[in-house]
Amino acid sequence: MALASVIGVGSTRYGVLDSSFLELVIDAASQALRDAGIGPEDIDAYYLGNFAGENFINQNHLAAYSASAIGLNGVPATRVEGACASGSLAVREAILAIKSGLYKRVLVVGAEKMTSLDTSGVTSVLAKASNWEAEVGHGLTFPAVFAFVARRYMHQYGATREHLAAVAVKNHNHAMLNPKAHMQKKITLEEVLSCQHMVAEPLSRYDCSLISDGASAMVLCAPELAETHRKDVVDIVGTGQASGRFEIFANELLTSFPATRLAAKRAYTMANIKPDDVDVAELHDCFTIAEIVATEDLGFFKPGEGGIAALEGRTRLGGELPINPSGGLKAKGHPVGSTGVGQGVEVVCQLRGEAGLRQVKNAEIGLTHNLGGAGGTCTVHIYKRR
Amino acid sequence: MALASVIGVGSTRYGVLDSSFLELVIDAASQALRDAGIGPEDIDAYYLGNFAGENFINQNHLAAYSASAIGLNGVPATRVEGACASGSLAVREAILAIKSGLYKRVLVVGAEKMTSLDTSGVTSVLAKASNWEAEVGHGLTFPAVFAFVARRYMHQYGATREHLAAVAVKNHNHAMLNPKAHMQKKITLEEVLSCQHMVAEPLSRYDCSLISDGASAMVLCAPELAETHRKDVVDIVGTGQASGRFEIFANELLTSFPATRLAAKRAYTMANIKPDDVDVAELHDCFTIAEIVATEDLGFFKPGEGGIAALEGRTRLGGELPINPSGGLKAKGHPVGSTGVGQGVEVVCQLRGEAGLRQVKNAEIGLTHNLGGAGGTCTVHIYKRR
Repeated sequence: MALASVIGVGSTRYGVLDSSFLELVIDAASQALRDAGIGPEDIDAYYLGNFAGENFINQNHLAAYSASAIGLNGVPATRVEGACASGSLAVREAILAIKSGLYKRVLVVGAEKMTSLDTSGVTSVLAKASNWEAEVGHGLTFPAVFAFVARRYMHQYGATREHLAAVAVKNHNHAMLNPKAHMQKKITLEEVLSCQHMVAEPLSRYDCSLISDGASAMVLCAPELAETHRKDVVDIVGTGQASGRFEIFANELLTSFPATRLAAKRAYTMANIKPDDVDVAELHDCFTIAEIVATEDLGFFKPGEGGIAALEGRTRLGGELPINPSGGLKAKGHPVGSTGVGQGVEVVCQLRGEAGLRQVKNAEIGLTHNLGGAGGTCTVHIYKRR
Repeated sequence: MALASVIGVGSTRYGVLDSSFLELVIDAASQALRDAGIGPEDIDAYYLGNFAGENFINQNHLAAYSASAIGLNGVPATRVEGACASGSLAVREAILAIKSGLYKRVLVVGAEKMTSLDTSGVTSVLAKASNWEAEVGHGLTFPAVFAFVARRYMHQYGATREHLAAVAVKNHNHAMLNPKAHMQKKITLEEVLSCQHMVAEPLSRYDCSLISDGASAMVLCAPELAETHRKDVVDIVGTGQASGRFEIFANELLTSFPATRLAAKRAYTMANIKPDDVDVAELHDCFTIAEIVATEDLGFFKPGEGGIAALEGRTRLGGELPINPSGGLKAKGHPVGSTGVGQGVEVVCQLRGEAGLRQVKNAEIGLTHNLGGAGGTCTVHIYKRR
């Protein structure tokens, strides 16, 4: 049934950190190995999710660069890149590698050191994930892309800035319960709504994810070996990946990402579950509107109802389906290459019952959703407590 | 026995080309699909090998970027990066993906558009594949790294510039027989030896690979399905990947790359063959000395004898083991992300008996060797005519 099993997880704090890229990777990897009760010598292969090290830290070839630093001697080391979905693509390659039978234990790390550049520099690097020639060259950076999505969503469904704001408030509140989250600041609906600092109307600074440094790691192993390593095994029972139209203008609808729908369908089918079966989800809220759209594309709510659900509190801790208990990209932080792996780490903690103050009660099935670019790449993974 | 089978190959010409990155990818992919007798709708997944699109063409997230341009709708699209080994890493992920059972037919493309920058710009981008902080920052770009290797090799084994030159002359001669090769210029040993244009002593311009644009592609499929697609199937029967010490100074020996030895050992074991069984090989000759060292690390010749073998003509077409019949990186060209896939394309053509004037007689087993950085990554694949 299971594709692969998670036997170790680890993560640095996300934030503006003094640590170098290598220090971040070593920290997260060591935690995951320790959690699995094994050493680097037990690892057969290593996948690194990283988006733009060559621009952020002037260093490429980052899987080999970090492999020996972790203590992995001679082990195959491969970097995977798919914009903001780089981390979950690395998880997926690790799953396939285990399923191939060639490897028994695989280390996956997602890492990004972003705060080496200022905000405009970061925006410019991130913009390389959408079509530079056709979009970015005309000023369409990512906040602008998602502002279009928000505008259209509001027009189509009569949604208001309150619906967006509800996502920000929720994720800030969740992050307050996560000691590893970048943002530790409670905010109110009124504060968000009165914010005059617009990034791309109608998205204010409260609607945008953070620029963070950070790394997360997981040790995956062949399902039949998992219990020789630990008792509280979490299995990966579904994985779906899809590509979508690369340019936002090429999409039929602005308020739905076909890649998410396709990836979700594939993951649900493989796991043999329905959206209703999911107990906790970590979604790609690069902007507040992105979380709302994702909750609809993933089948949690009908089109146009995701914003209402957020405002009604149905997606907060204690609600019917807690979304982004970690704080999400919005408040936990978004070190790009790390994000997809970090989502897996959070879901595993939740399914093991180790999430402390932000624990979702009796969580048995968790889902991660990681989006690259303006829907060019999407990966959905489904985790289940054994 | 077989891990995966090759049912289609294609490649652009390598060189200074007017085509854009997308045009290169579309060209190579279309050829490979046509060669396989299938359309994009028959493809289950897509892997792209690319080293530094974000620096060369200001565009990242390149797998999704190119997927829809090829006509792959919704198909998982993943970019793999491992410096100059990016292409062969993409081949390897495709092999693992097929072996996992999740996909039946996978398209692999390697592509790089490099001539958008001038030589010093390209050198600077390539240098991000070695340790920027510890090496490049001190002036140690790749020509310098391999100049160290050459110096040490000459010192250790009493080799001369003639041994290096023999590799250049051979690969230029081979490229003359390859209409898709970048360099179409016959050279003599005397010309090479009298060259005063030193890049990094003892390496002259004749010892260095070219800066090229280009793309290559292969369609891989599950072995049991291959014959439903074509009669002359080539199987991939061995794959080995290893990481090595990232910095050249961290290696015990300068004249051998442990990652090559390890990757080769793994590939030979999996394929159940010995170095002697190989009939044709495409090796990573980023510099002439690299080919010599590779022929030793791969077990074709004893340490110190690779240079002699080249000078004696044992590695040229008609010799006991023809190496780089395509012209190699040295004369066919080295569009970084494309190189590893292009090596596979050449070997498949050789095993099918379709290599025209550069055909190696009765070739049944072929090997590709692709090195990333100063030995940080190495992949060896073994192909066999069914």
